[in-house]
Amino acid sequence: MSELVEEGIVASTGLIAHGRGEAFDYLLGERTIPPAEKAEKVMAAYLLEAKMPVITVNGNSAALVAKDLIALSDLIPTKLEVNLFHRSEERVEKICRLLEAAGAREVLGRKPDAKLEGVASDRAYCTKNGIFSADVVLMPLEDGDRAEALVKAGKKVMAIDLNPLSRSSKAATVAVVDEITRAVPNIIRAAEILKDKPEERRELIGHFNNQTNLKEVKKFICQLLVD
Amino acid sequence: MSELVEEGIVASTGLIAHGRGEAFDYLLGERTIPPAEKAEKVMAAYLLEAKMPVITVNGNSAALVAKDLIALSDLIPTKLEVNLFHRSEERVEKICRLLEAAGAREVLGRKPDAKLEGVASDRAYCTKNGIFSADVVLMPLEDGDRAEALVKAGKKVMAIDLNPLSRSSKAATVAVVDEITRAVPNIIRAAEILKDKPEERRELIGHFNNQTNLKEVKKFICQLLVD
Repeated sequence: MSELVEEGIVASTGLIAHGRGEAFDYLLGERTIPPAEKAEKVMAAYLLEAKMPVITVNGNSAALVAKDLIALSDLIPTKLEVNLFHRSEERVEKICRLLEAAGAREVLGRKPDAKLEGVASDRAYCTKNGIFSADVVLMPLEDGDRAEALVKAGKKVMAIDLNPLSRSSKAATVAVVDEITRAVPNIIRAAEILKDKPEERRELIGHFNNQTNLKEVKKFICQLLVD
Repeated sequence: MSELVEEGIVASTGLIAHGRGEAFDYLLGERTIPPAEKAEKVMAAYLLEAKMPVITVNGNSAALVAKDLIALSDLIPTKLEVNLFHRSEERVEKICRLLEAAGAREVLGRKPDAKLEGVASDRAYCTKNGIFSADVVLMPLEDGDRAEALVKAGKKVMAIDLNPLSRSSKAATVAVVDEITRAVPNIIRAAEILKDKPEERRELIGHFNNQTNLKEVKKFICQLLVD
């Protein structure tokens, strides 16, 4: 990660965020715990059921799982859009190029032409054909502001966030509390299985409650702490 | 913190470590919990009882609490020594100067002339008149390797570490699980009170068990998580 700061892909505040993630992952025993696995399946189901799903990519997620996010985007299929908390033309361009070099056919975000309401950071800027029109948005490593704004805008929000107490996790339709390099491959595997099973997908969605699932996550963390 | 990376005080990996701390502090409710307050008192007692106490300073602790560490060092009194995980002459010099500009009279560490056994990182290098001869070492924001090595070398290790599961916390004689900008002022206040109370100091030391106290910390985190 540190090298990617020098290359301009990851913001230096992105390193602090990465460290926060490391601590929470440590508390999960650095593994996919059962409630996360469940959320990953439900997330795959939401993405497959969506009319217009979009995956939003930032510096950290591009640095960590560019190839897997592209593979997931091809499989569902979804659009890919770059939105940055600390936006500069140069960083957007670098991250778009990193994704294209990793095999992405089309990357939105270079020229935002829409703005989300209720987001103070540069992540408010998005594209009409992308995030702005999406019904389901997968947001790995997100900030609470935008998660809440997207939910308010009527979208189904799929968060990947190691902090079960964060505003993103709580606001999300589905929060996967798992490390991103484990989570995305797990979502891909689940999507492969659910691809031709629409009934099973709807059942998964119907039975899922994000708040209940987050409680399960917190129970797991406590068990590991106290044992 | 990010600006201090550019100035060469904080290593970019130090930002990741800072993020890990933020996550654990979040789980404490960003406050000094009672078992941390207890450990802070015991730590003050150990420092006051020591024959040759040394405070070891790294980039992150210099960035966050230089003045408070110097005030504590003056009060006890203790020596101050700079030891870096990622050592370069230039970074050592910058951190020594930062401490001197903040009021430190003498800072050891520019010319290490001793080496701790069992430490793989550059933090093995220390000074004969400092860490190497110390009986009590206060190490804010430490790595497990050195904490264990110092305990093996027969020293009393005073750790300030937000992760109650870390090797430093577990190896330490006293582990304060508290954010450093709260912890150091708390230790100063405790030392002021205990300065003329040798009996009370020995009683505090005699009644303290680090493992038991860490269990209390973990219980507090769980309560906050599950509530």
